[in-house]
Amino acid sequence: MVTAYHEWMTKQPVNLSEALASFDEIYSPRIVAHMNDYDVRIAHTKGEHVWHVHDDTDEFFLVLDGHFDIAMRDAAGVETTVALRAGDTYVVPRGTEHKPSSPGGSILMFEPSGTSTTGDRHEGQIPGHVDSTTGHELN
Amino acid sequence: MVTAYHEWMTKQPVNLSEALASFDEIYSPRIVAHMNDYDVRIAHTKGEHVWHVHDDTDEFFLVLDGHFDIAMRDAAGVETTVALRAGDTYVVPRGTEHKPSSPGGSILMFEPSGTSTTGDRHEGQIPGHVDSTTGHELN
Repeated sequence: MVTAYHEWMTKQPVNLSEALASFDEIYSPRIVAHMNDYDVRIAHTKGEHVWHVHDDTDEFFLVLDGHFDIAMRDAAGVETTVALRAGDTYVVPRGTEHKPSSPGGSILMFEPSGTSTTGDRHEGQIPGHVDSTTGHELN
Repeated sequence: MVTAYHEWMTKQPVNLSEALASFDEIYSPRIVAHMNDYDVRIAHTKGEHVWHVHDDTDEFFLVLDGHFDIAMRDAAGVETTVALRAGDTYVVPRGTEHKPSSPGGSILMFEPSGTSTTGDRHEGQIPGHVDSTTGHELN
């Protein structure tokens, strides 16, 4: 009990700008907060991600800087793209095939701990600049 | 199935600045996104909130603008305050008595849908400028 209280009483806030400045890797999320069984993650974005789908979870995006687009594909293969700018939020519903892309930027995501960046299924090869991961702790 | 796809294909991003500009009420969260059984909420902050506790959920805060402080109290009644500024994130662990205060600002929160702004228990009267709510949909 005392230990638990001591833990939070010495816990410091995490500033998003400082956290983003602490790493350079593209599409390689860092976990800035654990909240219940969810993670708050941030990532630098640049280039094409990979088509993938999360069967069992929605995915929340907030664009922190730059531009970030999400292409989505319906059951008939028809694509729709939402173009997001700083301050824009969007939820990709579970089961929706999607592929992010960006000319450069950074995002915040909210998703269940253990969610893979490349989904339960993805299409084709994972590009070298995309990290298939469930997120890395901040150093 | 067709309806569901049509729904997301016509769904628009929500911009946080525009959403914040769409209402004036203090400590009266608007829900900007539903994600699984969680809400993403935003609120204007000013003045003292009320001491309260969420027994069963952590609460994630991101400061969007201004200053936002969170006082927390341990089992012995000892208070600690974290002072948050724009870009700062913080998680108040479940079961922790806390009282936000702010000279003015705005915040984003993640929490399970249905979570009350004044917790499962609160101390004393709820001030008139604090809305005891589980969040309002954006108009």
